[in-house]
This record gives sequence, structure tokens and C-alpha cells, in this order.
Amino acid sequence: MKTIRDIGEFGLIRKLCARLPHAGDDCAILPGPRGKHLLLTCDPVVEGIHYLPATPPYRVGWKAMARNLSDIAAMSGVPKWAVVSLGLRPTTPVRYVTELYRGLTAAARPFGCQIVGGDTTHVRHEPFVVVTLTGEVERRRLVRRSGAKPGDAVFVTGKLGGSLRGKHLTFTPRIREARWLTQHFRVHAMIDISDGLASDLQRLVEAGGVGFDIRAEKIPANGSLRAALIDGEDFELLFTVAARDAGRLRSRYFEIGRVIKQPVVLLDHRPLTAHGYDHFQPR
Amino acid sequence: MKTIRDIGEFGLIRKLCARLPHAGDDCAILPGPRGKHLLLTCDPVVEGIHYLPATPPYRVGWKAMARNLSDIAAMSGVPKWAVVSLGLRPTTPVRYVTELYRGLTAAARPFGCQIVGGDTTHVRHEPFVVVTLTGEVERRRLVRRSGAKPGDAVFVTGKLGGSLRGKHLTFTPRIREARWLTQHFRVHAMIDISDGLASDLQRLVEAGGVGFDIRAEKIPANGSLRAALIDGEDFELLFTVAARDAGRLRSRYFEIGRVIKQPVVLLDHRPLTAHGYDHFQPR
Repeated sequence: MKTIRDIGEFGLIRKLCARLPHAGDDCAILPGPRGKHLLLTCDPVVEGIHYLPATPPYRVGWKAMARNLSDIAAMSGVPKWAVVSLGLRPTTPVRYVTELYRGLTAAARPFGCQIVGGDTTHVRHEPFVVVTLTGEVERRRLVRRSGAKPGDAVFVTGKLGGSLRGKHLTFTPRIREARWLTQHFRVHAMIDISDGLASDLQRLVEAGGVGFDIRAEKIPANGSLRAALIDGEDFELLFTVAARDAGRLRSRYFEIGRVIKQPVVLLDHRPLTAHGYDHFQPR
Repeated sequence: MKTIRDIGEFGLIRKLCARLPHAGDDCAILPGPRGKHLLLTCDPVVEGIHYLPATPPYRVGWKAMARNLSDIAAMSGVPKWAVVSLGLRPTTPVRYVTELYRGLTAAARPFGCQIVGGDTTHVRHEPFVVVTLTGEVERRRLVRRSGAKPGDAVFVTGKLGGSLRGKHLTFTPRIREARWLTQHFRVHAMIDISDGLASDLQRLVEAGGVGFDIRAEKIPANGSLRAALIDGEDFELLFTVAARDAGRLRSRYFEIGRVIKQPVVLLDHRPLTAHGYDHFQPR
């Protein structure tokens, strides 16, 4: 019998999304108030997978919230409301939970996002935190994964790789950056880099039907090129704009390549075979 | 160090909600479109806690969705959009996941509710499903846990107890019943019975500052009185209306007692000491 390890997370999500008309982007895009879109996104973190038993609970909460805020950022949205589902062992100190909530709240507050509810359950083995967020975005400022055009310049908002050394627990979601971008530029396509540049470029290919030619020397790497390509949890934004806009962005962000017609990812003109983190096919 | 087992789920949620202005009811109540309230709720189910490894995945999906729909029903809301976070072992058959989604969709569809997105992660031990729902309710038809008035008649929409024999996997959330009630009556307070009548009466006491005098012989029990009081997962609605409205409701629902001034739960005029299911203090 075919398991989800056989088809990988990409394969599974592709299969599930095929039946869901609003899915397939970083957030679901729904009718919202006052001519805006309502955004809806959720993202689980699990002990032993996304954080360790020894990770300070404040940081667990921060990460669980910031990952979701990053999905709102990827659509150029403004986050609004959050609900939190907690799975906890009964032996968990009360202090652990209040610290976790302090982290959740601290990550959300700077963006005007408020926790408005949630639920708890007990677990025997693996605690988890699932945050669900709503957001809003003006129709003309919505950015999807699709929309990149051949000839576009490709940018990332920050350095990539090595997030597990600490950044994955402390990063600032790129909401302000995304809002600034869509205020001043026509952003054609955008995604947050959660599973590694290589995988998230591939997602833009699948969504947009175009490809990417990335210049290895232009990738802003925290360590090795390989780490910058395949490490997960950078939570920087990957986006494309018309080539004529590139000049005004180079002083702020990192231009790493061009959009091409052929729906493949190239690294220095050769097919990129590396891929990033897959939940059901761990390296 | 005090653990969450020491304070119980009631204690933990009371502590967390104290800091959350919109929390404390079955759903968060937020500003919505066209003068309506937006409702937001989430509810996790975990393998080994809410369902068994052998439970058919269609039923797991059904239950995960129906529990959330029941929270929307408790506010007299109409469900709209759902997102789903899945924690799965990599060895899970693909078929298991598509069946789970079939159950999620089947439970949601009759109410016009649509799954619009989600995310997946791997787990080592305990799979989980977290559904988050949005809903809407007209301002004048919103019903909260608070609002019961001394002298009100207290009703439940169906038989209680013994849900674990099967109903917990197949129940129909009482959305139509709640909508009918608020179309024809002024419902003062409402909650869905998820952790047993005894516990959920206590929640209405905490929310509304009034009490309940329940008549044991009037409780519609599937088995023993004790089971009807403390078994969880009935997912019937518990609500109060003015005594003058009780006559018109008795042919449809079960009148079980009266609202009293004193903020306690009485069973045949004596304090009820039994309590229902507590996630962090399992019986």
C-alpha cells in the first residue's frame, strides 16, 4: 500500500489541494470585508520535530506564531486574529504554558494581531501547538505564488541557511517588508521560504508554470551554498518583480536570478536537483 | 512545581482566558462583514484520546469537523470556511489521508462549509487533526454562555450519555436546531455539551453568574443517570429560554430544570458534585 512517505509532502499536499478550490497558496484567499480579501492559514509545530523538549516555552510560542505570520506576509497581508490549539502532557508545568502564551503574544503584538481563543487537549507523547490566523489584504495588494513573468528579477529578503542554529526560534516574520514592497512596487509572485530555497522555488514553478535561473554566487548564504538551498525555516520572502524595478530594490534586498519561460529551476543554467525539507521524507 | 494536572483543564483555560478579551465562549466573537459577527473556533483531536488507531479514517475526519461545527452551533452561527492541520506518521497510507478528508468534507458540506486549506507535519507517535472554522452570525441571533436569567427553563436537544459506544464518531452537529431556535425564540444562553452535562452546566454558571436546579428524572439518559451527567462528547445543545417559551419547546426538546439565582448546580435541589471529562485529570 502506498504511504505518504512514498509520495512525500509535496505529493500529498498536491493531491489534497486538487480538491480544494481555495487552497494551494500560503493562505486561503476568501471574500473579506470592505472589498478586501480575508486570509486564513494554519501551521502546526510538534515537539521533537520543530522544537526540542529543552527549547524554552517562550521560544516555542514565538515560533508557532511567527511561522503563521510569515504565511500572511507571503500574501502581503495584515494579520488580525489568532486561535491556538494546544496538545499537552498532563505533567506539563503551568508555568510552561503561561510562558508559551507569552511567546505567542509577543510575536503577534507588534503586528496588531491578537489571540482570541483556542482549545487544549492532553497528549501522551508529543506536545504540539497549532496556530490558526486570519488576515486581510487589499485586493490590489494581494500577491500569490503564481504570477511570475519570464524576465522578472528574483529577490530574497535576507540571508539563507543555518536557521537551526537559532534563527528558527527568534525570527521576525517579514510582514513590514511585504507591506512596504506592495506599497511601492508591483510584486508578481511571492512565497515565504519555509522548507528551503530549492523547494520553495519548485513551489513557485508549480503554481506559476514558469521557471527560475538562479545565480549561485548571488545567493546570500549564512554558511554553505548547499545549506542556503536546502535548509528549512529561513522564513525570508522570495519574490519577483519586473526587471525595470530591480534597480530600486538592490540596495535593500538580494537579487538572485531571473524568471524563465521553461518551468524548471536552474542553478547557473543547470537543473537544480537538490531539494529542501520534506516532512514525510526526512533526510 | 504546579502542573496542569493539578489545576485541571478548567483551571488552565480559566487562567489563559483571563488574558484574552475575546475568549471564554464556544467561539471567539469578532467584527464581521455586513454587521454580522465573525466566529472563530478550533478544536484538536488526537489518536488514542479522541479516536483509536483502528477507527476508520472517514470517521476520524467526520468527528474532527463535526466537533468544530458544534462550537459554531452553540453560538447559533452559520459555518463558512475550514482549515485543517494534520500531524501524520510517514508510514500512513495515502488512502488513510484521502478517506480522512472525505470524512471532513462529508461532515462540513451539508452546512455549506468548505475546506479551503491547511498544512501537514510528521509526527513520531500520536497523529492529530486540528480543524479551525470560521462562521458568521447576525448580531441579534448571537447566543453566548452568559445570559441565562433566574426563572429560565433549561433544555437539552437530545439524549445524553454513552456517546463512546459510537455516537461520538457519527453525530450531527446541531446547527439546524440552533438556527431554528434563534429564528423563533429568544435564547438566553447556550453551550454544546462536549465534556458532560455536569461540567458544561458548571461552565454556564461561571460565564453567567447564575445557577441551575436540574431535575434528575427529566434528564434524557441513553443509559444511567451518571453516564448522562458525566460522559463526554454528547454534542447536544444545552440552552435556556424564558419560562413562558417553554411550553412551545417541550414537544421538540427536553426540559431538564430551571435557572436559579445562586451560582451553583443543583440536582433535585442538592449540590451536584460529579463532574465530566477533564483532559488533564482523566478519570
